[in-house]
Amino acid sequence: MELPEPVIASLLERWPVGRLGLRAGGGRPVVLPVVFAAAGGRLWSPVDGKPKAGAGGDEPARLRWLRHDPRACLLLDHYAEDWSLLWWLRAEGEAGIHREPDPEASAPFAAAAAALRRKYPQYAQGTPLFQGTPTLVGLAVERTVSWCASAAAARHAAGGAG
Amino acid sequence: MELPEPVIASLLERWPVGRLGLRAGGGRPVVLPVVFAAAGGRLWSPVDGKPKAGAGGDEPARLRWLRHDPRACLLLDHYAEDWSLLWWLRAEGEAGIHREPDPEASAPFAAAAAALRRKYPQYAQGTPLFQGTPTLVGLAVERTVSWCASAAAARHAAGGAG
Repeated sequence: MELPEPVIASLLERWPVGRLGLRAGGGRPVVLPVVFAAAGGRLWSPVDGKPKAGAGGDEPARLRWLRHDPRACLLLDHYAEDWSLLWWLRAEGEAGIHREPDPEASAPFAAAAAALRRKYPQYAQGTPLFQGTPTLVGLAVERTVSWCASAAAARHAAGGAG
Repeated sequence: MELPEPVIASLLERWPVGRLGLRAGGGRPVVLPVVFAAAGGRLWSPVDGKPKAGAGGDEPARLRWLRHDPRACLLLDHYAEDWSLLWWLRAEGEAGIHREPDPEASAPFAAAAAALRRKYPQYAQGTPLFQGTPTLVGLAVERTVSWCASAAAARHAAGGAG
């Protein structure tokens, strides 16, 4: 069964982590965990100050991949040993790269940054929201697909915090 | 920093859930949560008795997608509010579809099924390991990529159970 629409909306607002599916070089599938926040009809994920895999002066791989193919999906789910409580939600669409030397100069960009700061107190506790030129990946969701194992799973998704 | 090799091996054995990245129709990226077990050098995920999204008489979408493009990856990670404890591990390779009307007739298939039953007591508690013709997806891992935020995160990955 699908998750109820209000539960989907709530999860997209408050679920703490998503797994972002992209196409890497040559088209092979890659998945990476990301934090995200909803604002202005998109799901936003920052290139933040967490240390990055393969870091250096280069831009993160995810940006290189997205330039090649903007199609993306974000999976939200929660594993539980009680399989009657399992659920997942996948948001599918295209993801744009938004760079703003001055994050306050663009209202949508500023709103996205504010939503991320509201959702994640970690950005006020030592992790910079941005590194280098402030950059956000914004997923424009074209459709959502969801599943839950039972009505209890849907209630669990509606109430749990990850 | 990367996860130490013994931690990677341990996670591939015991981590309870992975997020499987595939290419759907037209090449768009999709991600789905799966249970899996390691056996005979592959990571195995069953088409099990959990209710499926878009179920019916049809085969699960993941099989249709894999027939079209066998490239796949499996992401293991654990979200924590303490971002110094974050880590992820991605296994990349090609995934084959293995169908055996008699699961015991093939030694590798039987070993994979046994590994899944050992790892997940849920298969002895009401969820059938298979539905329809016994079917496993077997990921032949060509490479792993990993990241952890700190030495503490690597220790966390080495010790935690999800």
